Amino acid sequence: MSTEFSAINTLWMLLGAILVFFMQAGFSMVASGMIRAKNSGNITIKNLLNVGLCTCFFWLAGFGLLFGTGSGFIGWFDFAVSRDYSAVLPAGIPLSAFFIFQTMLCATAGTIISGAMAERTRFIPSCIFSAVLSLIIYPIAGHWIWGGGWLSRLGFLDFAGSAAIHVLGGTAALAGAIIVGPRIGKYGSNGKSQAIPGRNLTLSALGVFTLWFGWLGLTGCSAGSMGNESISLAADIIVNTTLAAAFSTCTVMIMTKIRYGKSDISMTLNGSLAGLVAISAGCAYVEPLGAVVIGILSGLLLVPVLELIDGKLKVDDPVGAIAVHAVCGAFGTILLGFFSQNGGLLYGGGLHLLGIQCLGVLAVVAWSGIVSSLAFILLKETIGLRISPKEEAVGLDAAEHGLFNQQTDFLSMLNDGVSPVPVTGSVPLEEAVPVSAFTEIDSSDKKLTKVEIIMKQERFEALKHALTKLGITGMTVTQVFGCGTQKGQTETEMYRGVEMDIQLLPKICVEVVVAKIPVVDLINTARQVLYTGHIGDGKIFIYDVENAVKIRTGETGYDAMQGADE
Amino acid sequence: MSTEFSAINTLWMLLGAILVFFMQAGFSMVASGMIRAKNSGNITIKNLLNVGLCTCFFWLAGFGLLFGTGSGFIGWFDFAVSRDYSAVLPAGIPLSAFFIFQTMLCATAGTIISGAMAERTRFIPSCIFSAVLSLIIYPIAGHWIWGGGWLSRLGFLDFAGSAAIHVLGGTAALAGAIIVGPRIGKYGSNGKSQAIPGRNLTLSALGVFTLWFGWLGLTGCSAGSMGNESISLAADIIVNTTLAAAFSTCTVMIMTKIRYGKSDISMTLNGSLAGLVAISAGCAYVEPLGAVVIGILSGLLLVPVLELIDGKLKVDDPVGAIAVHAVCGAFGTILLGFFSQNGGLLYGGGLHLLGIQCLGVLAVVAWSGIVSSLAFILLKETIGLRISPKEEAVGLDAAEHGLFNQQTDFLSMLNDGVSPVPVTGSVPLEEAVPVSAFTEIDSSDKKLTKVEIIMKQERFEALKHALTKLGITGMTVTQVFGCGTQKGQTETEMYRGVEMDIQLLPKICVEVVVAKIPVVDLINTARQVLYTGHIGDGKIFIYDVENAVKIRTGETGYDAMQGADE
Amino acid sequence: MSTEFSAINTLWMLLGAILVFFMQAGFSMVASGMIRAKNSGNITIKNLLNVGLCTCFFWLAGFGLLFGTGSGFIGWFDFAVSRDYSAVLPAGIPLSAFFIFQTMLCATAGTIISGAMAERTRFIPSCIFSAVLSLIIYPIAGHWIWGGGWLSRLGFLDFAGSAAIHVLGGTAALAGAIIVGPRIGKYGSNGKSQAIPGRNLTLSALGVFTLWFGWLGLTGCSAGSMGNESISLAADIIVNTTLAAAFSTCTVMIMTKIRYGKSDISMTLNGSLAGLVAISAGCAYVEPLGAVVIGILSGLLLVPVLELIDGKLKVDDPVGAIAVHAVCGAFGTILLGFFSQNGGLLYGGGLHLLGIQCLGVLAVVAWSGIVSSLAFILLKETIGLRISPKEEAVGLDAAEHGLFNQQTDFLSMLNDGVSPVPVTGSVPLEEAVPVSAFTEIDSSDKKLTKVEIIMKQERFEALKHALTKLGITGMTVTQVFGCGTQKGQTETEMYRGVEMDIQLLPKICVEVVVAKIPVVDLINTARQVLYTGHIGDGKIFIYDVENAVKIRTGETGYDAMQGADE
Repeated sequence: MSTEFSAINTLWMLLGAILVFFMQAGFSMVASGMIRAKNSGNITIKNLLNVGLCTCFFWLAGFGLLFGTGSGFIGWFDFAVSRDYSAVLPAGIPLSAFFIFQTMLCATAGTIISGAMAERTRFIPSCIFSAVLSLIIYPIAGHWIWGGGWLSRLGFLDFAGSAAIHVLGGTAALAGAIIVGPRIGKYGSNGKSQAIPGRNLTLSALGVFTLWFGWLGLTGCSAGSMGNESISLAADIIVNTTLAAAFSTCTVMIMTKIRYGKSDISMTLNGSLAGLVAISAGCAYVEPLGAVVIGILSGLLLVPVLELIDGKLKVDDPVGAIAVHAVCGAFGTILLGFFSQNGGLLYGGGLHLLGIQCLGVLAVVAWSGIVSSLAFILLKETIGLRISPKEEAVGLDAAEHGLFNQQTDFLSMLNDGVSPVPVTGSVPLEEAVPVSAFTEIDSSDKKLTKVEIIMKQERFEALKHALTKLGITGMTVTQVFGCGTQKGQTETEMYRGVEMDIQLLPKICVEVVVAKIPVVDLINTARQVLYTGHIGDGKIFIYDVENAVKIRTGETGYDAMQGADE
Repeated sequence: MSTEFSAINTLWMLLGAILVFFMQAGFSMVASGMIRAKNSGNITIKNLLNVGLCTCFFWLAGFGLLFGTGSGFIGWFDFAVSRDYSAVLPAGIPLSAFFIFQTMLCATAGTIISGAMAERTRFIPSCIFSAVLSLIIYPIAGHWIWGGGWLSRLGFLDFAGSAAIHVLGGTAALAGAIIVGPRIGKYGSNGKSQAIPGRNLTLSALGVFTLWFGWLGLTGCSAGSMGNESISLAADIIVNTTLAAAFSTCTVMIMTKIRYGKSDISMTLNGSLAGLVAISAGCAYVEPLGAVVIGILSGLLLVPVLELIDGKLKVDDPVGAIAVHAVCGAFGTILLGFFSQNGGLLYGGGLHLLGIQCLGVLAVVAWSGIVSSLAFILLKETIGLRISPKEEAVGLDAAEHGLFNQQTDFLSMLNDGVSPVPVTGSVPLEEAVPVSAFTEIDSSDKKLTKVEIIMKQERFEALKHALTKLGITGMTVTQVFGCGTQKGQTETEMYRGVEMDIQLLPKICVEVVVAKIPVVDLINTARQVLYTGHIGDGKIFIYDVENAVKIRTGETGYDAMQGADE
Repeated sequence: MSTEFSAINTLWMLLGAILVFFMQAGFSMVASGMIRAKNSGNITIKNLLNVGLCTCFFWLAGFGLLFGTGSGFIGWFDFAVSRDYSAVLPAGIPLSAFFIFQTMLCATAGTIISGAMAERTRFIPSCIFSAVLSLIIYPIAGHWIWGGGWLSRLGFLDFAGSAAIHVLGGTAALAGAIIVGPRIGKYGSNGKSQAIPGRNLTLSALGVFTLWFGWLGLTGCSAGSMGNESISLAADIIVNTTLAAAFSTCTVMIMTKIRYGKSDISMTLNGSLAGLVAISAGCAYVEPLGAVVIGILSGLLLVPVLELIDGKLKVDDPVGAIAVHAVCGAFGTILLGFFSQNGGLLYGGGLHLLGIQCLGVLAVVAWSGIVSSLAFILLKETIGLRISPKEEAVGLDAAEHGLFNQQTDFLSMLNDGVSPVPVTGSVPLEEAVPVSAFTEIDSSDKKLTKVEIIMKQERFEALKHALTKLGITGMTVTQVFGCGTQKGQTETEMYRGVEMDIQLLPKICVEVVVAKIPVVDLINTARQVLYTGHIGDGKIFIYDVENAVKIRTGETGYDAMQGADE
């Protein structure tokens, strides 16, 4: 090992590693905000596990396969990074600094996939794929490009991973999204794409800011060295990265405004990423003006490609990962054949570099596409890749992690276009079993009464206990707001020094329908539990119920109210 | 161009650029959390666009206008940063590094405005203003202060932008907030300020942490050089920045506790920023004790200023940007005339520096105020600056971006004090049209029946399809929770290793009122769709409806139930 | 003061300070996501105040007590860091850089406590404890370990604070959690632990990513110097930190999957932190393989310890801070006695180092445990440490800060297992007062009618005003969704270029029960306010009410409807 380390080069690379690590948070937030709340915990923990697993497996063997001086196709096997890599280390940088930076790049490639496969993929197979990617798929293609393999020998240029990270990850995402199939309801019975809106685009925007932030470290610190001419190279790279992202963001905003009448937030978020992905390959090789053009072109490309994948190819990619990473990554890599100051077509370099860039993209697409497909098919055929329709309806948070209470997004759930009709490439909801029909419904034999209790939330548990003791087996609870309009009924609080009349106080409405249990007992019980003597104890309303039907048994009237609550 | 670059100086400045970039995420989160959910996507994407647009226009011409060695008033025109800036570059730093750091500062100034104008400003005019600011307003004032212009020649001190960024941006925010007018309902018919509470102060707090984090880069890396004496200067700056923010945070917390009885979260968040803004000008020139005093004083100033702007001046600034950036920025710049170790009044420097500081603040306020006002008035008179009252009621997310489902904040919407009465500087809700009144309402000619179906959420789409086929044209859907209290009725999940009885299961309640369609058909249809044979299929309740009124037509009874659902 | 500063060492340490500062955002998000929404604003502002207070008090005197060359037990008193610390400064680093890095470490220790005491601790006492910790508890133990005190003289190793920060903070958290007692409902009448699920684990995951990000700065930059051999040391440290965290994350995920059948998200989040905490002591001293083993072991330890603390010891720690920081911190410190390459048992160093490590942990536990307990008991006995049961039910956001509208989490509130039965170490909900019971309820003397208005949200305020004028004193408001299934009834928007039929439109349902006021007047009023002539004006339904009971007074029928709304 070299005894002469450069402190500044090492610091710069470590800073890069730290910043690229934080991109994982960005990917998580982008994906978590663009999907439905019922899967939001799952996608986030999947991203955390992805860092964990990629680190483990890249350390165990991936790094050696990438950077070992093996053949042109593959590095060498090296358990736990213990061989000599001085031949490939950037000047003045210790192996450990180089390793950790490369580990973070590997984790970045791994994280691209989960977004495209979100909301219907089982957790354990996703984790296994992260391991496969960081152990085999990424290191081998990386060896071709960055580890001295055949593509690098041909002169293929990919400075910060448009191909090695994004095309690779994006192609795997494409394979995964096709093999796992679209979410239930994504394509209606007529095959038409349905919008399933993201639940929290503020969170996704936070993710994009975080990714952009980390990306400046990814491209800037890929310069590797801060010595001599590299000093201004790192700065030039960061300028190019920022310009491309800025112009692609604005391009997509304007384009969606023109095409759809309103500027689309989630596509504009993708637009920033498209520019970042596209400029990664060439950030060190192009002029600022080239970066601007690459940014604008990738923005222009993004929108039709998103439409094509979603609407025509019918590949369900909830976060747009395939268009952003695979397509814009490939596009940026190829554009470098035009815009590279050293060998680009527009700089008099002829078709040579352009040809090699195209070849490189094809090679990465083929490699990642084939191996990822094999891996996903193998997972599908063995332990299974997709959750059941029932689990999909309930959500991965509950199905895979037992979590029921993450931020509710009742509206987006109901508006998510889920159709009961079987859809292409997907599994139908379990069919309802035909049941014998009523010809008429007799009026209830015994009087049924609905008792509606409007009360403070904090005494609900006490009421529940008391009613259970009384023999009530079921109740329906709704969040309501009580609005008192008389003077003195409202609470006053200060917000930013301004008096705030809280005229709508959160209450709950507990509804119980009784047949056997006397209404007077129910009311007495409720009063005893809820009475404090202060205004705000609540009210009870009593209504007549004409009839009731228990769906499972078809019982009506008094009978419907007996037995287990449904 | 200088051939001798300093690696460490360049690295430090690039790090600064990266950290300052991330402040954009901070501004977004602060604003998004302090407003209502219906506008949260809009404000966030506005902030992302702001980075994009400021980068584009500052690169296209703004940078040259700021740093070109033109006159004392303005730099030079330089398309796409192509002229020679070696005269103004800090020692050992390449132009690209300096440019990108300055770009990020410009974007920071641009982002201040959107918070103050949130919740009622049209998207495209906001974007245009970002362009104007980064192209003209910021560069010219910046030239005076940092580009060798007349203020800098007088000896005006503004190390990291209290005036050049915050007074400038804050004054523009003031102009914009006045010209666009207050949000509907912000000032009641009596002119009294109404609280419109922020929806998610955790998010705003994340924003403040993020800003503070980035700010340490903004002030610290403004040192420009890490050589010789600058080494400890950068450290001193970061100490001063942290001390001022820490003391102003604590000051505001204590002050709101004393004034309002409860410590106000959102004002305390503003308090951290007030300290950061105020210390920016002097962070390199004051002693730690000076930083502490500046922090405390700006905290003390903040609360009455917020009250003044909101309550007395009746300028509606949802996030407090004017008080934080304009007022505390001006205050901090002027305080430097007292606390500067080199020329400050308290250090024996007399009134000279203090006078120049005051003059500088006045110049920036006048410049930014006048030009911003002109720009906003021009936008208002041409393409229009403000959304319609109806769009404002619906929210910018839906009106400008077609987004309906962002995190609902039902409670804050209802409690937001929106008044139907016309208010100063604002537009009334479209007036309701007078309608002919009923003298009495006949009892319904045909029996109306309400059918209430309590069911699992996942079969809602199937039910909707079936009911539509049956001829039902409208239904009301509510999120309720079913509470089964019998043993064995609950699902058990583990959370952190603890068994969790899920006693309240999310259900939906679908209510349909029928007149023509036989109830028995409705029930049979519902049963056929919902029946699975498992406990939990749900229940149906039937109620008598005395009457119904269709508001639009005034039809009652059977007639009210015909035709389109409303 | 040394005149020879190292720019790179200083820059590295300042970067560390900036990154460690951002850990505060991480702690906030972790805690805010793992508790209930009603306390989420409070915990976040508490964390912000913690940075503020720790900075103030560590600057005022804490730093001197830690780093002053006093005795082996304590440094010296030094107001506002004004004495000479050249004896303890790392090579080439100015005092201000060292001070700010150390300040951020101190704030980290302080922030650990609030999570464990969340949801029931008063705000002001929490703030006071932050001051005590940064003024006394942390500096004195820190002096022993890092300030040249007795532990450091014995050869105790704690590179980046497993003991000095995490055991110290975690032990204080344990003392605080015991003394303040468990949350109401956490332990049922049978003493069994109840799950109180975190509301937003995506936010907590963002917190973990943020902490991990900052942690790489904490451990990496603790290297202090980037000169000579330290260059690769910093890199090695970051590798070790990452490996330990990655392996512990995976370990906990697998372990919870095996133990509970489903992988637990919140414990896996704790798992990442457990690895980070455990490796902090030894990150500079162990081999990568040692880091991996420490990571795996701390992951294995975490799950049973969390179960033990929560289930057996019945210490209520909502975020798992005690297990993560105190236990895994102690574990990691002691493991260093085995894995240190220089003196560890497995490297032939015998029991010497192991013994010292154990002694050090004991010393920190004893010191922090005793002093923290005294402080908390003193606070409890004087100004009071715990909020009232009523405030606890309402939530700290409302009780301490007057905030009512933060993201509602209705479901988690109702499912939070809060029991009305008095529980160990906690205070019962105020008991309901016994009330005289009805023997029967007469049918209402006057006809009661429920009028249900389904309408657009934006006209609610207008309706409220009009109804109030009419004499209506109370109404119940519910968020519902209107579902129009006829063609042409839906609004169409584009989302990502896909047409989206918004079939469920948010509406509100206003329910008014009237006795005295004629129904026809109510309907006329509502129609006049709501009529615009467009489809979507809404409908009114009228129902018979059998009876009503006012809980507070026991009045029924007509009488129940008079007077103030409840």
